[in-house]
Amino acid sequence: MPADHSEGAAIMRVMEHLLDLAGMPGAEIPVGARQMARTSLFDWLVCGRAGQAEPLARILQEMATREGGAAQAAVFGLEGAYPARMAALVNGAISHALDYDDTHFAHIGHLSVGIYPAALAMGQAQGATLGQVIEAFVIGAEVAIRVGLVLGAGHYNRGFHMTATAGAFGASVAAGRLIGLSREEMRHAVGLCATRASGLKVQFGTMGKPYNAGIAASAGVETALLASMGMTAPEDGLMGAQGFVATQSDAPDEAAFWRDPPVERFLFEDIKYKLHACCHGTHAMIEGLLALEPAVRDRVRAVQLRTNPRWLGVCDKTAPQTGLEVKFSYAWLAGMVLRGISTGDERSYDDALASDGALRAFAEGVTVTGDATLSDMQAEGVVVLDDGTRVAFAHDLAVPLAQANLQAALLRKAEAAIGPDGEALWRQIERGGAARDLAAFVRGG
Amino acid sequence: MPADHSEGAAIMRVMEHLLDLAGMPGAEIPVGARQMARTSLFDWLVCGRAGQAEPLARILQEMATREGGAAQAAVFGLEGAYPARMAALVNGAISHALDYDDTHFAHIGHLSVGIYPAALAMGQAQGATLGQVIEAFVIGAEVAIRVGLVLGAGHYNRGFHMTATAGAFGASVAAGRLIGLSREEMRHAVGLCATRASGLKVQFGTMGKPYNAGIAASAGVETALLASMGMTAPEDGLMGAQGFVATQSDAPDEAAFWRDPPVERFLFEDIKYKLHACCHGTHAMIEGLLALEPAVRDRVRAVQLRTNPRWLGVCDKTAPQTGLEVKFSYAWLAGMVLRGISTGDERSYDDALASDGALRAFAEGVTVTGDATLSDMQAEGVVVLDDGTRVAFAHDLAVPLAQANLQAALLRKAEAAIGPDGEALWRQIERGGAARDLAAFVRGG
Repeated sequence: MPADHSEGAAIMRVMEHLLDLAGMPGAEIPVGARQMARTSLFDWLVCGRAGQAEPLARILQEMATREGGAAQAAVFGLEGAYPARMAALVNGAISHALDYDDTHFAHIGHLSVGIYPAALAMGQAQGATLGQVIEAFVIGAEVAIRVGLVLGAGHYNRGFHMTATAGAFGASVAAGRLIGLSREEMRHAVGLCATRASGLKVQFGTMGKPYNAGIAASAGVETALLASMGMTAPEDGLMGAQGFVATQSDAPDEAAFWRDPPVERFLFEDIKYKLHACCHGTHAMIEGLLALEPAVRDRVRAVQLRTNPRWLGVCDKTAPQTGLEVKFSYAWLAGMVLRGISTGDERSYDDALASDGALRAFAEGVTVTGDATLSDMQAEGVVVLDDGTRVAFAHDLAVPLAQANLQAALLRKAEAAIGPDGEALWRQIERGGAARDLAAFVRGG
Repeated sequence: MPADHSEGAAIMRVMEHLLDLAGMPGAEIPVGARQMARTSLFDWLVCGRAGQAEPLARILQEMATREGGAAQAAVFGLEGAYPARMAALVNGAISHALDYDDTHFAHIGHLSVGIYPAALAMGQAQGATLGQVIEAFVIGAEVAIRVGLVLGAGHYNRGFHMTATAGAFGASVAAGRLIGLSREEMRHAVGLCATRASGLKVQFGTMGKPYNAGIAASAGVETALLASMGMTAPEDGLMGAQGFVATQSDAPDEAAFWRDPPVERFLFEDIKYKLHACCHGTHAMIEGLLALEPAVRDRVRAVQLRTNPRWLGVCDKTAPQTGLEVKFSYAWLAGMVLRGISTGDERSYDDALASDGALRAFAEGVTVTGDATLSDMQAEGVVVLDDGTRVAFAHDLAVPLAQANLQAALLRKAEAAIGPDGEALWRQIERGGAARDLAAFVRGG
């Protein structure tokens, strides 16, 4: 059919595909995606609780308590309940405050912090089950990844923050699903989101970065609510002429939305979790060293690391002055692993760590060289033992952890971040129940 | 000084100029700008009251009543009071629902609907005087115009809606002024606004267009509030590398911000008011015909109009089918003027008007031709009387009305739009008092 080859038809195909995905029956969601969505819910809640006392959190909590309003959804660190639109904004920002939440490398962004706050708040407002919240999230996350693929590097490199922008579309779909929007109402929600979504990378390094996650979540709740009440928007707000993609990407790739159809497997399943509270560029090295036998680890005197060259300018600080700078220091982090200091515990990174004499002495034996044959998720190298023996190590973050290992690692992360509540939370998420049952955990202690 | 010529210095100059303007003492605001700001407040309130029963208004009012919250500011058409952030969102959208509000041609957008909702809501929340609200508005409006000039046609033509985007920066500054932000807090408010501002023209023709005005107002209140509570943002969020201007304009003009310094006169003073409830491209013709002597008007049998060619594709519908289409029909509108049907009364434009036999017969004698020597604010032509006499007419919207004539015209507009409350509102605005004193008018009858 000729119409199928016209630009207009291609655009409509993206929008119709998006609406097909948004309306996918829960029973058709791949089992693996659903399991990873439960895992993300756990990790996101841990990040939110861990962030609830940060200075940024105090500011947003104050805005929420000053505004007050309908008791619909819980907010990290606050008693009571707040309007879903507000809870989404505050929880999105708080859960991204430590930058310790999940990442998707195709989407170039953080999925949970933009979408779960919208899904959980709307699920609590609507009296949904936890299973419905998880379904709404995973559909929203898959939409956000695919919108991100359409926007492409030409969006990210121009300066937009995918977590906020593509994330808003995912949040809108997730919230809309929980309200029970019709296909046409969902089209309006997405169309309204096209004019509401925003967020720039220039905020990195300030409180504006976590704010971006809250913006995504809040925009999602607001646009879904407005669409449910009859608000109209353009049919082509996302993909049409001068729509969101056209105005905010230099090189959109429309076909990317459906190149790998979400049938037996979702792209979402490639989600990655931070298991160490430091720069992501150091994680492959840390995992490689942690995989050495304990008897070997105790005898290491020098480390010769190879890593993707792009990381050399990011996380090869050879003389960190503060705890924050240690997070960007291969040499210090290698010493921490080999001496048994937790890299997953935020509290390890105090300024005293940077002046630790033993770590400084060990750092002199660490060499780091760039190797363009390695991806930015890989690290390889050799450790030299006290008797001169050389032992190779390597790790590739792209290889998924077995679910049991991932669970154990995330429980350790939770223990370090928020104390002993993690085990009970994991069981609660596995058990299901009502979305409102999570309110007590969100409010925290 | 060499630094003065570097790009970085130019960028900082814009931001420092913006902060200078944001902090200008009230006593230095030009008298003419203050007078026009009072006039805009009157016209904006009339537009809000006139829009309060539109379908869009009902949707946003429902969102406000469902959310509830702190009683800070009045909303068009609702009893009670709502959080300032919500009042700004709802009032921005409602006041733009009829598209009958003021326009600034340098800024390519509507100023009052994005900025007054933020200023009035924050003024009411803070217990400010009406004079302080008017000052905050006019400073915010001047900032928005100048940010709009920096963004330039390369922003608007790419698909962004200046009312929403540049408007958000104006709203942030206006709200920040009413909170009493320090210069550094104002810098953070503007930096946060860089990541919160959004709005696309693709929404035109849907409820998304007035929503854009609400987005600007709400973003302004939110970012000013967050900055007042200590939230941080990049120093260069507006102008820096990958800041708002760099990511969202194809051809920014940094020098435009300060080319015409706001000392004796503000650019805001060029604000234009819609006196007819139809396409702006028809207004010069309508004013030209209204200026004919009544004895001449009664005898017109034919109209030969010349207009800027760009309007031919916009408002030269020769056979309108609906009341809405009449708003884009030179021929019908000419007949309305000559037969004494009000072009300023929204109620004139019902669908019966499009099938009026006398107007259709008159339309056959109307010819419209493009004339590139005319600006898009000018119209010229000739009317042919029943005895063949030819009488020339012309009007240029760029020539400001004398204040007394403008006031009289806006009072007639108010009478048609909302009934007899206009006179009392005009006196109240001239008199001053507390911002909260306007709540009763906003709530309406």
